[in-house]
Amino acid sequence: MTARHVVVRTSKRVPQEILDDLRDAGAATVHEADGRRGALGPGLTPIQQGARIAGSAVTVSCHPGDNLMIHAAVEQVRPGDVVVVTTTSPSTDGMLGDLLATSLRSRGAIGVVLDAGVRDVAELREMGFPVWSRAVSTRGTVKASPGSVNVPIVVGGQVIRPGDAVIADDDGVVVVPHERAAEVREAARKRIAGEEAKRERLAAGELGLDMYRLRPLLAELGVVYRDES
Amino acid sequence: MTARHVVVRTSKRVPQEILDDLRDAGAATVHEADGRRGALGPGLTPIQQGARIAGSAVTVSCHPGDNLMIHAAVEQVRPGDVVVVTTTSPSTDGMLGDLLATSLRSRGAIGVVLDAGVRDVAELREMGFPVWSRAVSTRGTVKASPGSVNVPIVVGGQVIRPGDAVIADDDGVVVVPHERAAEVREAARKRIAGEEAKRERLAAGELGLDMYRLRPLLAELGVVYRDES
Amino acid sequence: MTARHVVVRTSKRVPQEILDDLRDAGAATVHEADGRRGALGPGLTPIQQGARIAGSAVTVSCHPGDNLMIHAAVEQVRPGDVVVVTTTSPSTDGMLGDLLATSLRSRGAIGVVLDAGVRDVAELREMGFPVWSRAVSTRGTVKASPGSVNVPIVVGGQVIRPGDAVIADDDGVVVVPHERAAEVREAARKRIAGEEAKRERLAAGELGLDMYRLRPLLAELGVVYRDES
Amino acid sequence: MTARHVVVRTSKRVPQEILDDLRDAGAATVHEADGRRGALGPGLTPIQQGARIAGSAVTVSCHPGDNLMIHAAVEQVRPGDVVVVTTTSPSTDGMLGDLLATSLRSRGAIGVVLDAGVRDVAELREMGFPVWSRAVSTRGTVKASPGSVNVPIVVGGQVIRPGDAVIADDDGVVVVPHERAAEVREAARKRIAGEEAKRERLAAGELGLDMYRLRPLLAELGVVYRDES
Amino acid sequence: MTARHVVVRTSKRVPQEILDDLRDAGAATVHEADGRRGALGPGLTPIQQGARIAGSAVTVSCHPGDNLMIHAAVEQVRPGDVVVVTTTSPSTDGMLGDLLATSLRSRGAIGVVLDAGVRDVAELREMGFPVWSRAVSTRGTVKASPGSVNVPIVVGGQVIRPGDAVIADDDGVVVVPHERAAEVREAARKRIAGEEAKRERLAAGELGLDMYRLRPLLAELGVVYRDES
Amino acid sequence: MTARHVVVRTSKRVPQEILDDLRDAGAATVHEADGRRGALGPGLTPIQQGARIAGSAVTVSCHPGDNLMIHAAVEQVRPGDVVVVTTTSPSTDGMLGDLLATSLRSRGAIGVVLDAGVRDVAELREMGFPVWSRAVSTRGTVKASPGSVNVPIVVGGQVIRPGDAVIADDDGVVVVPHERAAEVREAARKRIAGEEAKRERLAAGELGLDMYRLRPLLAELGVVYRDES
Repeated sequence: MTARHVVVRTSKRVPQEILDDLRDAGAATVHEADGRRGALGPGLTPIQQGARIAGSAVTVSCHPGDNLMIHAAVEQVRPGDVVVVTTTSPSTDGMLGDLLATSLRSRGAIGVVLDAGVRDVAELREMGFPVWSRAVSTRGTVKASPGSVNVPIVVGGQVIRPGDAVIADDDGVVVVPHERAAEVREAARKRIAGEEAKRERLAAGELGLDMYRLRPLLAELGVVYRDES
Repeated sequence: MTARHVVVRTSKRVPQEILDDLRDAGAATVHEADGRRGALGPGLTPIQQGARIAGSAVTVSCHPGDNLMIHAAVEQVRPGDVVVVTTTSPSTDGMLGDLLATSLRSRGAIGVVLDAGVRDVAELREMGFPVWSRAVSTRGTVKASPGSVNVPIVVGGQVIRPGDAVIADDDGVVVVPHERAAEVREAARKRIAGEEAKRERLAAGELGLDMYRLRPLLAELGVVYRDES
Repeated sequence: MTARHVVVRTSKRVPQEILDDLRDAGAATVHEADGRRGALGPGLTPIQQGARIAGSAVTVSCHPGDNLMIHAAVEQVRPGDVVVVTTTSPSTDGMLGDLLATSLRSRGAIGVVLDAGVRDVAELREMGFPVWSRAVSTRGTVKASPGSVNVPIVVGGQVIRPGDAVIADDDGVVVVPHERAAEVREAARKRIAGEEAKRERLAAGELGLDMYRLRPLLAELGVVYRDES
Repeated sequence: MTARHVVVRTSKRVPQEILDDLRDAGAATVHEADGRRGALGPGLTPIQQGARIAGSAVTVSCHPGDNLMIHAAVEQVRPGDVVVVTTTSPSTDGMLGDLLATSLRSRGAIGVVLDAGVRDVAELREMGFPVWSRAVSTRGTVKASPGSVNVPIVVGGQVIRPGDAVIADDDGVVVVPHERAAEVREAARKRIAGEEAKRERLAAGELGLDMYRLRPLLAELGVVYRDES
Repeated sequence: MTARHVVVRTSKRVPQEILDDLRDAGAATVHEADGRRGALGPGLTPIQQGARIAGSAVTVSCHPGDNLMIHAAVEQVRPGDVVVVTTTSPSTDGMLGDLLATSLRSRGAIGVVLDAGVRDVAELREMGFPVWSRAVSTRGTVKASPGSVNVPIVVGGQVIRPGDAVIADDDGVVVVPHERAAEVREAARKRIAGEEAKRERLAAGELGLDMYRLRPLLAELGVVYRDES
Repeated sequence: MTARHVVVRTSKRVPQEILDDLRDAGAATVHEADGRRGALGPGLTPIQQGARIAGSAVTVSCHPGDNLMIHAAVEQVRPGDVVVVTTTSPSTDGMLGDLLATSLRSRGAIGVVLDAGVRDVAELREMGFPVWSRAVSTRGTVKASPGSVNVPIVVGGQVIRPGDAVIADDDGVVVVPHERAAEVREAARKRIAGEEAKRERLAAGELGLDMYRLRPLLAELGVVYRDES
């Protein structure tokens, strides 16, 4: 049987100019642009307001209540990366605090997505180091159990592989496979261009029913209009 | 069998001056003033801090993952209305974003209560368009399934009918049937008047035990005082 | 059988200078310093950002949906105390509002931990009166059922006795038995002293793998390094 | 303001022969036959296997942790009725045990739907008295707080009024407004008749894709067939 | 600081004849007899139907995902004991299977209460070895982390100390402090005696409203009777 | 962009004799034998007791509340297959009933794993057609939205690809990648062989502490033995 626990050194990354555009598009738009895929769900919430990032994933799989492998992951971080951490069983323990965040930032990490708990959130907000997590928890972890870095992991029902694009903002977190990143960037651009014109028309009072030509659909679906008797 | 899916045009509204008073009273006080009724529960949380609204309900029932009927609802909105949306099965998908909010606002809607998910929350906060929702989610919806507008719906265990008063602030959301709105406004007024005097007495150090005359009740209920040995 | 419902008058408190140090250390550090004990879990969240308190516990056990015993507890509060409330069955009803908070503050309470719901959160934030709770809820309570004050209670899986030290901040809530408070203060001091040096080394780019000498542990645990083929 | 707490004496019932047919059809089929309405959701589970009932609702609204009003409801029960209980705030306390079930049965009740907890489940199973509940709990209740009997209540997002038809089996619980009961019975009958023929064709190996003519729909929706390379 | 992880050898037990009576009374009745205390809540469910046990607790505190300390606990089991296990952070991993159950049974354990997951449930049912747990899970655990045996633990919001009486049946689990066990047995006996007479009267059609003299209470609480107009 | 919605025809299957051995080993043992991997977690529970199956996966991805693609999947089933269904957003609606089960069985399917709801459970139990699901729900679905068959899906945090081995019993569901199936079968065989001897020794009263030589580990971890004072 092959080794259970590995740290993979990989140079797979999404080009920075694509990441910049995906970040500017935002998580919700990227999700739409990728054919409504890649959303990690409402369970991963930001500890801060207003942060918006996109980076290539460094993935980490930890034993619950044990953050040893995040330490191993720090060495694999390159500037602009986002560290994405899960546990082999569900856990809300605080696997990341300000010390580890300081270490990650010194290597160039721009944020962390934690399918577990975070702590020192006041310090992290003050540092301006953005984190999306399953929970905030004072409960700490040990450094005693093996795990893996840069293997495919599952978070929020989505597969995340090392080097995939991770986009996170106030709406949550979205992943785009690195081989689709350029394609999705283009789709997002078109989407944004179209949205600006729509926003103006809607702001001017035009109805979505008319703009999207939905009235025939309502009729076809059997929706009936009635004046209150 | 009658039509399953309808859009009802109704002019039922709570008078604006009553809504103004209910808004100033706040959701918790209105709930008390209505005999401790109408609370939609702790599951509907605001995406912003400090917003406080009261309006007449435009109700919407959608298929999960489908926001077609919100578009149909926009046309039924009058200035000062609050749009209240539910789904026929539980869903956290993001049924409202900044485009649809722009459309609603252009018709005069003052906020939305969503028994589902919302997205573009950064943009909505910037717009100052208040939303209370079950979740924040990047996951989008389609526009493909029928539903209804301005029929009675159930949210958070409460029945909400078109034209009922909806009061929402940092504490959550409360509904008052439109036929009870004037009566509740009066009860809220009295309650607030009484609270001011109480606040001063309590701030001055008087005990609630004395002010509310609770000592005899404690004794009657068998509560015993004991000095630690 | 002894009395079921009691209010205990006790002078048991943790000395203020110890509380001050525990507060400065913060909940997460205190939890570590006490051998990773005392965390009340991620379910108790602050209604405000940035508050940080430590005080001796006044404990309250209420019937669900009934805050009578919090009124009884006010009388037992001394300046610097933290009131910790639970219910005999799980409840999210809003057991504390701005009136009761005004009363608690006038007696010197510095904050409340509620294993239940809170309301009037906008007013509480404005007052600067910090609360950690299970929920925010408009739903009010009655004053009709007996309970106890200053008996041991269980919140978040932790036993809290009157006079125990309660530390709460943005990370959550931690309890330290009063007889261990001085000892934990010392352990927290040492921990903080050590952390400052570590932070500087990590900020300078040193890896935790080296600083904590984790490389041999990874090898011993069978973690293998691999270059991506 | 009208009385807050009432016990309504009503003779509104669904005719027994309609109830018999609805019971035989089963909860899932009735739900479909009523245009996919009335399902109380997956949270209400049976404590026994194989029970299948349909009766007119006697509704009860209780204070959480207090079953006084179920006692008041017993008097309103007629043979063949189903008692449906909710609480004004969510509660899992055990509001019904074998004594109360004995009382209900002696009045002719055929089962209970509890949006709360039940206890003495071993005895209830032995009695053959069916219960659907939110939880099983040893925790008992008091008899001290007012509530209402035979007013409209909300359970599982559905409005249930006194006299509505309640159908419950291993799949869960469904409500049908009494004014629609006859109509739904007819629709259920047709549905069952059609299902028998379909079952035989499917058992014989015919595909639903062909029987329901779904292949054109798949093509229209853009579903593509591909042989694995 | 005293040792963090201990295995305590204790001879504290509740006498067998008291346990026998508590078992016969059942968990719900014991809970009532102890002044409505000691219920571990609806989250701990039996994997079998019809088991009913009462024994003295051997308590175990484990690291999540690690069952080493259950092995240490086996040695401390005496015939008739119930092993009660919790984890320092919430976990649903399967900490007990048929091998460990075989070992426990060979030492005389009569059942297990697990604030975590169990597996091999088919085998455990066949063995007739009863278990109450938070979850059923295929996911296994390691034997690598320290913990404690026979120290006070908290499960379901209740403190359980070594030697306390644990009563479990289809309704769930209840704990009685060993020093109150005899007293509770007496109270349970009286309760059961009274219940038999009540059951007969209720079965004969007498109303609880009359038997418990609740009609005046309803009136006093403001409950009004109304005939449907 | 490639087609979003596909039905893949594939002949990838795990050989039947391997599946037979994995089934006999059971889900928990297979999970251990595969290095503690592949568990779909405690959220997927069987609707029946005592079923034990292993088959190759036919995977299905549906829109929430829509079972069209299960109909498409029926055609892809070969004798001995297990159908595994998920939805693109979480849903508990009843996506499978007795008609669809009849169709699946006629094609040779031996069971279904549903990351959603099931209904007609009484009929399914009578048919002896085993199902593991997230929920039991009366609520039905439509046949209107596109999805995919035989693409990789994620259920319970695990990736399942068409042709992977799915093992399910009373403990839950485990997946083994088809390329590891033979290897895992061998590991399971060894494990079972070893367990039999252990079971006998433990049944004879030998302690796991001695059999697994855990006493030195306890000492090394700092676990101290203490006689109760």
